[in-house]
Amino acid sequence: MKKYNIAIIPGDGIGKEVVPAALNVLHTVAEVHGGIQFETKEFPWSCDYYLEHGKMMDDDGLEILRNYHAIFLGAVGNPAIVPDHVSLWGLLIKIRREFEQSINIRPAKLFSGLPSPLANPKDFDLMVVRENSEGEYSEAGGRIHKGEDEVAIQNAVFTKKGTERAMRYAFDLAKTRKGHVTSATKSNGIVHSMPFWDEVFNEVKNDYPDIKTSVNHIDALAAFFISKPQTFDVIVASNLFGDILTDIGGAIMGSIGIAPAGNINTNGKYPSMFEPVHGSAPDIYGKGIANPIGQIWTAKMMLDHFGEVEMGERLLQVVEEVTAAGIKTPDIGGNATTVEVAEEICKRLKQ
Amino acid sequence: MKKYNIAIIPGDGIGKEVVPAALNVLHTVAEVHGGIQFETKEFPWSCDYYLEHGKMMDDDGLEILRNYHAIFLGAVGNPAIVPDHVSLWGLLIKIRREFEQSINIRPAKLFSGLPSPLANPKDFDLMVVRENSEGEYSEAGGRIHKGEDEVAIQNAVFTKKGTERAMRYAFDLAKTRKGHVTSATKSNGIVHSMPFWDEVFNEVKNDYPDIKTSVNHIDALAAFFISKPQTFDVIVASNLFGDILTDIGGAIMGSIGIAPAGNINTNGKYPSMFEPVHGSAPDIYGKGIANPIGQIWTAKMMLDHFGEVEMGERLLQVVEEVTAAGIKTPDIGGNATTVEVAEEICKRLKQ
Ligand SMILES: CC(C)[C@H](C(=O)O)[C@@H](O)C(=O)O
Ligand SMILES: CC(C)[C@H](C(=O)O)[C@@H](O)C(=O)O
Repeated sequence: MKKYNIAIIPGDGIGKEVVPAALNVLHTVAEVHGGIQFETKEFPWSCDYYLEHGKMMDDDGLEILRNYHAIFLGAVGNPAIVPDHVSLWGLLIKIRREFEQSINIRPAKLFSGLPSPLANPKDFDLMVVRENSEGEYSEAGGRIHKGEDEVAIQNAVFTKKGTERAMRYAFDLAKTRKGHVTSATKSNGIVHSMPFWDEVFNEVKNDYPDIKTSVNHIDALAAFFISKPQTFDVIVASNLFGDILTDIGGAIMGSIGIAPAGNINTNGKYPSMFEPVHGSAPDIYGKGIANPIGQIWTAKMMLDHFGEVEMGERLLQVVEEVTAAGIKTPDIGGNATTVEVAEEICKRLKQ
Repeated sequence: MKKYNIAIIPGDGIGKEVVPAALNVLHTVAEVHGGIQFETKEFPWSCDYYLEHGKMMDDDGLEILRNYHAIFLGAVGNPAIVPDHVSLWGLLIKIRREFEQSINIRPAKLFSGLPSPLANPKDFDLMVVRENSEGEYSEAGGRIHKGEDEVAIQNAVFTKKGTERAMRYAFDLAKTRKGHVTSATKSNGIVHSMPFWDEVFNEVKNDYPDIKTSVNHIDALAAFFISKPQTFDVIVASNLFGDILTDIGGAIMGSIGIAPAGNINTNGKYPSMFEPVHGSAPDIYGKGIANPIGQIWTAKMMLDHFGEVEMGERLLQVVEEVTAAGIKTPDIGGNATTVEVAEEICKRLKQ
């Protein structure tokens, strides 16, 4: 019996609804599998926790988390009560950074039974490899002067190491897929970081002679995700560009509510973290109608990470069946609740 | 008789095809109108020009251009022969900067007779106001170290003046439209420039109590352009975010080939420049099939700028009629040539 210890952080808003639903599914997966077991422990770190304790997580939070095989997170943020900068950088981005989860992988594919917002959706199946540790998300920068003369400077920092790591990850992944990597650049407008990005890409691609490559500026690429998503396989992108592309990926699938993600620690020193692309959606929290598929698909990515690939595939297949059968939440045109969708998935897994 | 002097820069690739087509239309507009006249002079500045002269434009190019009422530009760039940084920053961005064209306005709307790639396109009609002079497109930055240790730093520079100017432009524009401004931010991940952007937005909006506002992070906003574009009126965005959103705007209209733009000088010191959103498309250049609508709609924006609003509206109406009649280029599902589309528009304008 293989046992995986998983730290659970439901976080804020609908995170508190979709995480239990996905855990229900995850435990059913273990039951059906027979040879694996998930030992879970829940941590209440969130904006509510911040209001009570003045911090987003315990002081020894990272020490505690590092002993787990993985972290399974819902969503962080509730700007009505805690500024985003405080909540996100105090929990979500803190974990990404401290645990050197330097790669964020996010798939998008045509999902059975889900009406795509595209009129003529071709059978797309792509994976965005997002640099997750640096780039435009840098704390370097500041302000000078006051009032009418105020200037804010934001430094985007691209290291050779970080850039190359993301690219190698993308090329290695492409080897197991359709063998094509697209680089998201903007070197025609952003003249220091992006030409550097291009140089590293040109260097790395030489080590992968069997992989086809293409390069697109982010503006065109965003448009191509709408006009011809089926032409992409693996896309490697900076922190910001990956963030934008993967929300577009969610949109073309039919709902950001189904898009999953994995924050991958690539040096084996720390746990990886699995969290859906969507946020805490305070506007629909409490109604029981949040789409659990993003969190459940995220669980599938965690299974892949553990090497339980077959089980992960079975899970995603069942999710697509349930969606196709019309058992779905309102955001994708159904009237089922969060719990009902998860229950149905569990039921079918057991069949 | 009102006379407008216009500097014409066809530039590279399909710019050399769509600009003559649009000029044909523009002169027909003048003829039909009766009370206006366009005096045009063409400048050969382009990548070809660079190969011959070692520069993208004449040394006194800016001096010459500043005497015109407007600049009408096709597309710049041919990376196969001149690096983008050289061509774009030596001509396109140079003119934007030197002539303080600090605002770039770019509409997107559901276009009659054009199959939208969206399955259920609602009647959207939005305008992106893009900051066009600073932000992420800054020449500040550089590199340190070599080889495995190399680091590239890119400074994004946001001034109060530049940020406020774009926002006020957006609010003033919203007054003449549906009265709603959306701010494109990313202050949850980009922690110096974007919180500054938010602060300026909050300050400026106080001066426009009648305008409704909303704020979206760029990732969500990009997704909303696909899932609910009809909910937007005016969107104010940084240089980079505006760049990305307007290509998405082109995509949801059905083709980037129809999207127009105006680079607006707001202090009255220099001419404004009108250029479509699309690039020089070297891959289709020479085939005579480039879509001229982007350039022609751009001519309409120039007419608006001159105060010839009625004539501009008539022109766009005829363009939509011609598209609806199926006389269109291959990118939007027809088999007409660039010249045929323009001819048909001229013919109908005269009727
Ligand atoms: C060519 C490039 C520098 C330019 C930009 O990003 O400004 C283009 O994409 C545009 O949108 O006009
Ligand atoms: C909440 C925010 C900081 C975060 C990001 O931009 O990384 C989110 O959008 C995501 O994509 O995980």
